[in-house]
Amino acid sequence: MKRIAVLTSGGDSPGMNAAIRAVTRTAIYRGLDVIGFRRGYEGLLDGDGIPLTKSSVGGIILRGGTILRTARSERFRRPEGVNEAYARLKEYDIDALVVIGGDGSFRGAWRLHEIGFPVAGIPGTIDNDIAGTDYTIGFDTACNTALEAVQKLRDTASSHDRLFIVEVMGRSAGFLALEVGVASGAEYVLVPEVPFKIEDLCEKLRYARQRGKTHSMIILAEGVMSAGELASQLKDTGGYEARITVLGHIQRGGAPSSFDAVLASRMGAAAVNSLIEGQRGFMVGYVNGKIVTPPMSTAWEEKRPLNAEMMELVDCLSI
Amino acid sequence: MKRIAVLTSGGDSPGMNAAIRAVTRTAIYRGLDVIGFRRGYEGLLDGDGIPLTKSSVGGIILRGGTILRTARSERFRRPEGVNEAYARLKEYDIDALVVIGGDGSFRGAWRLHEIGFPVAGIPGTIDNDIAGTDYTIGFDTACNTALEAVQKLRDTASSHDRLFIVEVMGRSAGFLALEVGVASGAEYVLVPEVPFKIEDLCEKLRYARQRGKTHSMIILAEGVMSAGELASQLKDTGGYEARITVLGHIQRGGAPSSFDAVLASRMGAAAVNSLIEGQRGFMVGYVNGKIVTPPMSTAWEEKRPLNAEMMELVDCLSI
Amino acid sequence: MKRIAVLTSGGDSPGMNAAIRAVTRTAIYRGLDVIGFRRGYEGLLDGDGIPLTKSSVGGIILRGGTILRTARSERFRRPEGVNEAYARLKEYDIDALVVIGGDGSFRGAWRLHEIGFPVAGIPGTIDNDIAGTDYTIGFDTACNTALEAVQKLRDTASSHDRLFIVEVMGRSAGFLALEVGVASGAEYVLVPEVPFKIEDLCEKLRYARQRGKTHSMIILAEGVMSAGELASQLKDTGGYEARITVLGHIQRGGAPSSFDAVLASRMGAAAVNSLIEGQRGFMVGYVNGKIVTPPMSTAWEEKRPLNAEMMELVDCLSI
Amino acid sequence: MKRIAVLTSGGDSPGMNAAIRAVTRTAIYRGLDVIGFRRGYEGLLDGDGIPLTKSSVGGIILRGGTILRTARSERFRRPEGVNEAYARLKEYDIDALVVIGGDGSFRGAWRLHEIGFPVAGIPGTIDNDIAGTDYTIGFDTACNTALEAVQKLRDTASSHDRLFIVEVMGRSAGFLALEVGVASGAEYVLVPEVPFKIEDLCEKLRYARQRGKTHSMIILAEGVMSAGELASQLKDTGGYEARITVLGHIQRGGAPSSFDAVLASRMGAAAVNSLIEGQRGFMVGYVNGKIVTPPMSTAWEEKRPLNAEMMELVDCLSI
Repeated sequence: MKRIAVLTSGGDSPGMNAAIRAVTRTAIYRGLDVIGFRRGYEGLLDGDGIPLTKSSVGGIILRGGTILRTARSERFRRPEGVNEAYARLKEYDIDALVVIGGDGSFRGAWRLHEIGFPVAGIPGTIDNDIAGTDYTIGFDTACNTALEAVQKLRDTASSHDRLFIVEVMGRSAGFLALEVGVASGAEYVLVPEVPFKIEDLCEKLRYARQRGKTHSMIILAEGVMSAGELASQLKDTGGYEARITVLGHIQRGGAPSSFDAVLASRMGAAAVNSLIEGQRGFMVGYVNGKIVTPPMSTAWEEKRPLNAEMMELVDCLSI
Repeated sequence: MKRIAVLTSGGDSPGMNAAIRAVTRTAIYRGLDVIGFRRGYEGLLDGDGIPLTKSSVGGIILRGGTILRTARSERFRRPEGVNEAYARLKEYDIDALVVIGGDGSFRGAWRLHEIGFPVAGIPGTIDNDIAGTDYTIGFDTACNTALEAVQKLRDTASSHDRLFIVEVMGRSAGFLALEVGVASGAEYVLVPEVPFKIEDLCEKLRYARQRGKTHSMIILAEGVMSAGELASQLKDTGGYEARITVLGHIQRGGAPSSFDAVLASRMGAAAVNSLIEGQRGFMVGYVNGKIVTPPMSTAWEEKRPLNAEMMELVDCLSI
Repeated sequence: MKRIAVLTSGGDSPGMNAAIRAVTRTAIYRGLDVIGFRRGYEGLLDGDGIPLTKSSVGGIILRGGTILRTARSERFRRPEGVNEAYARLKEYDIDALVVIGGDGSFRGAWRLHEIGFPVAGIPGTIDNDIAGTDYTIGFDTACNTALEAVQKLRDTASSHDRLFIVEVMGRSAGFLALEVGVASGAEYVLVPEVPFKIEDLCEKLRYARQRGKTHSMIILAEGVMSAGELASQLKDTGGYEARITVLGHIQRGGAPSSFDAVLASRMGAAAVNSLIEGQRGFMVGYVNGKIVTPPMSTAWEEKRPLNAEMMELVDCLSI
Repeated sequence: MKRIAVLTSGGDSPGMNAAIRAVTRTAIYRGLDVIGFRRGYEGLLDGDGIPLTKSSVGGIILRGGTILRTARSERFRRPEGVNEAYARLKEYDIDALVVIGGDGSFRGAWRLHEIGFPVAGIPGTIDNDIAGTDYTIGFDTACNTALEAVQKLRDTASSHDRLFIVEVMGRSAGFLALEVGVASGAEYVLVPEVPFKIEDLCEKLRYARQRGKTHSMIILAEGVMSAGELASQLKDTGGYEARITVLGHIQRGGAPSSFDAVLASRMGAAAVNSLIEGQRGFMVGYVNGKIVTPPMSTAWEEKRPLNAEMMELVDCLSI
C-alpha cells in the first residue's frame, strides 16, 4: 500500500477535521501518500483531489466543519457511478479509500468494496444513529451545543413562567434528544423510539401545574414531528401556549469537544493502521471503551437501541 | 427616603439580575430598605413583594434571566391599573420605584410618575432600541450569543457551499442584526431601517457567485420579515435555495458579558443614587461613555438612528 | 429504609450538584426523606444537616461547585471520628449515607461501612483516578475547560513562535493531561505514568525545530513536576525559553458538560436504587457504557492503567 | 497611493485578524494593493512580505492570534533600524504603513513618520492602556475571558469557603482588573493606580468574616505585585491562607467578542480611508462612540485615567 485517499460525505459534524488530520498524519507517519477528495463522492467523480501533507492538516484539529467540504452526490448513486468512481481512484493510483460520514456514506463505500476496492469507514454524524459504535464523531459536541442553548432558554422560560418546546436534530433517532433531555433536567423528552399520545402529555402538564411547576421544557426529537406541529397539538388538545425553538444547523457546527477530538483522532489512526494490516470493508467503532473494526455493513444491518434506563430517568428526576 | 422597590418588566435580558443586585446593595449601602416585586407590574398589583437583602442578591450577578421574574400585565394597562399600583406601593410604604425593562415598561412607570409617584427606569432589553442611551443592558450579550451561533452555522455553510439566512431578534430595529452582521463578516445584512428590493439581493448573490463565492450568509432582522418569507422570495425571484435558522429566545438567555455586567452594575447604582439626590421620572442612560439621567420620556420621544457607516462596512468588507 | 443522607467531600468537581439532585429526587420518587450534610464529614460531625426537597435541588443540575459545600476534615480522620459520625447519623435517623467525592472520601465512608453503617459512593473528581469506573464525574468537563484554555494559548504561541508549557491537574495521574494532549494536538505530553528524561525532550524539540516547527505546546501533568521546574530544566539542559501557564482551579469549576450531567444523573439514581435493593458498601461505576456497583474498596485496591495507545498517538499525530 | 502595507507588532490580542481583514479589504475595495509583513518590524527588516488578497483574509475575522504573527525587534530599535525599514518599504513600493499594536509599536511607527514615511496606527492590546481611544482591540474579549475564569473559580471558592487571589494582566494599568472586578462582583480589586496597604486589606477581610462572608475573591492587577507576593503578605500580616490563580496568556487568546470584531473592522476601514484622504502620523481611536484620528503621539503623551466611580462601586456592591 502506497497511497490512500480520504473524503467526507453527507452532513458535516464537529470532529471531521480531527479525523482528516489523524488519517493524514498516521498515513504519512507510516510512509504513505495521502490524497483528499473535496465535496465527497461528487468531488471524487470530478477528480477534485488534492495532496494532503503534514502541514496542510496543521491547526485544523479543533476547527468546525470539514476542510474537504462535503456534498450529496446523485451521480454516485446511479449504477454506473460506482464504476466511474473506481476508475478515478485507479487514475490517482489510490490503494484504499477512507470515508468519513454517516450510514448513507458507508453504503456508498460498500458498493466500492463489493467491486473490489479497499475501503474503511469512520462514523461522523451528530445523530449517533450508526450501529457498530457506541459513539459517532460529533455527537458529544452536538449534545453540549444543544445543552448550552437549552440552558439559555431555561433562563427565559423560568423568568416568564413559560412552556418551551425545543426541537433538536437526530434524524429518525432520539439519541441526541434523550441525552440533552437528561442533561438539562427537562421535564419531557419525546423521541421516535417511544410512541406517545398528546392526551398523555397534556395530562402530565396539567398535573405538573397543579404541583406548582410554573415553567416546563419539552425536548423534541425532529424524528417525532416538528415543534410547530407539537405546539398546535398542545393548543388544540390542552389549550397550552408553548414557545418553540428549532435549534437547527448550529448543532452541526463549532469546535469539537475534547471527547470528540480524541475519538476522531483515535478512529482516524485506527482506520489507517487497520488498512495497512490488511483489513477491508470495515468501519471503525468505539465499543465499550475500545476501538473495534466490524464489517462496514454492521452500520445498517443492526440497530442501536435507545437506553431505556435513561428514558425512565427523565420522569424520575423531573418530579 | 426610607424604602424603595424594584421590578423587572417586559422581555427578560441578560444582566437584569446584575441590575437588581446593584439597586439592592446600593440602597442598603445608603441605608434604605428594598422590596422586590415579582412578575413585573402584575406582581405589583397582586402585592407579590419580597424583601431583598444583601444575601438574597448574592451570587446572582452573572445569572441569566431575572430572579424577580417578569410578565406582561393587561390589568396595569387599564386606566384604573395605575391607581391600584399606586395604592399598593403606599401600602408597602415604598418611597420610590425602580423599573428595569424596555420602553413599554418605561411608559408604564411614567404613568406612575404623572400621578406623583417617584420612579426611575433602567433600560434592559437585548434590542438596544431605546433612545437616551447608547447601550441597553443585554444587547452586548445577545450580540455575542448570536455571533457564536452564526459562527457555528458558517462551519456548515462553508462545508456544504450553501446559502444561509439567520433571523435575529431586534423587534422593529436593526441594531442587533447590524452588529452581528459586521462582527461575523456576513455577506448581507437586512434591517428595517434600510428598504431593500428582493431583485437587488438576487442580483448581488448572482454577482458573488460569479466572483467565486461558494457560500453566503444573510443576517436578517426579524423586523424586516421572517426567514421563511425571505427564503420563499429568494426562491421565487432568483431560484436560490437557502437554509434558514431562527435564533429565537436563546438570544435572551445566558450569563451577561463583562460589558453588560458592568453596565448593569453602574446603572443600578446610579438609579438609586439619583433617586436619593432627588431626581424623579428619569431613566439611566450610558451616553458617550458616561452615566446620564435624562427624563424617562426620552426613551420614546426620540429615536436612535442606525449607524450608516456600519451599513457601508458590510458591503466593503464582504467583497 | 426511610431516610438517607448525602454529602460531598474532598475537592469539588463539575456535576456534583447534578448528582445531589439525582440522589435527592430519586429518593423522594421512591418514598424516602433526604438530608444533606454541609461541608462534608466536617459538617456531619457538626450536625450541619438540612432537609433536601424536590424544589431545593431545582435549577442546580448545571450549576458548578456543590450547594452542600465541601471540606477536608481532620476530626473525622481521627480514630474516634468515625464513631462520632455514626452517632450523628443515628441522631438524625439516617438509614444510609451517599458520599460524593474521590478515593479519600470513599476511604472515609468505608470506615462507616466497617462499623455497620450502610454507605454508597459516587465518584466525583476531575482527576479520573479512581478504579472501578471508566469515568468520574467532572473529568469530561475539566477536559473541555483545559482544552479551551490550551486552544487560546495556541493562538498566542503560534502568533509569537513560542514554546508553551501548560500544567494541568490530575494529582498523581496523567489521565487529564493525556486526554487534553491528544485533543489539542499538543506536541508533547508528560505524565507520571511514563518516565521521561529531560535530555530526550530537548532532543525532540531540537529535531522539531529542524523540521520547521516554529511553536510547540507541552502538556504537563502536575504529578510529574511543576511547570516552573520544567521550564528551568529546559533552559538549563537545552537553552529553551518556555512560557508557562498553570491552569489551576479553573479546571474544577464551570457548568458540567452534557456527558457529566448525564453521568451524574445516572450515578445518583443508581446509588439510591441500589441502596433500596439492599446493596451496602459499594461505589457506583460506569464501565463499558453500563452502570455497575462494585465494592467501594475497588477504588483504592485496583489501579486504572493509562491508555498506551493514546500515548503513542501523541507522537504519531504531532509529526 | 497605490500600495499599502500592514503589520502586527508587540503582544497579540483578539481581533487583530479582524483588523488585518478590514485593512486589506478596504484597501482592495478602494483600488489599492496590500502587502502584509510577517513578524512585525523584524519581518519588515527581513523583507518578509506577502501579498494579501480578498481571499487570503477570508474566514479569519473571528480567529484568535494574528495570521501575520508578531515579534519584538531589537534591530528596529537601534538608530539605524528605522532607516533600514524605510529602505525596505521603498523596495516594496509601499506608499503607507498600517501598524496594529500597543504604544511601543506606535512609537516605532512614529520614528518612520518622523523621517517622512506615511503611517497609521490601530490600537491592538488587551491592556486598554493607550490614550486617544476609549477601547483598544482585544480589551473586551480579555474581560470576557477573565470573567469566565473568575466565575469558574468562584464555584470552587464558594464550595470550599476559601479566599482566592486572581492575577490578571494589564501591564502597569488596572483597566482589565477593575472591569473584571466589577463584572464578577469581586470583593476586592487591587490596581496600580490606587495605592493600598496590606494592613487595610487584612482589616477588610477580618470585617467581612465577622459579617459572615465565608469566601472572598481578590482581583489583582499584575502591575501591583504578583499573586504569590500578595499571598505571602496576607499570610504574614493577617494569617490568611489564600489560593492563587495566575490567568496568564489565555487572556490574549480566543475568538474576538462581537464588540472587538466590530471595533477592529471599523478601525481597520478608518485607517485606510484616512490615509487615502491624506492623513499622516495618526492613530485610529474610538472616543465617545465615534471613530476619531488623533496624532499617533497622543498614545503616549496623554494618560487614560481609571474610572473613579467604578472603584467605588466595588466597595458598595460587595457588601
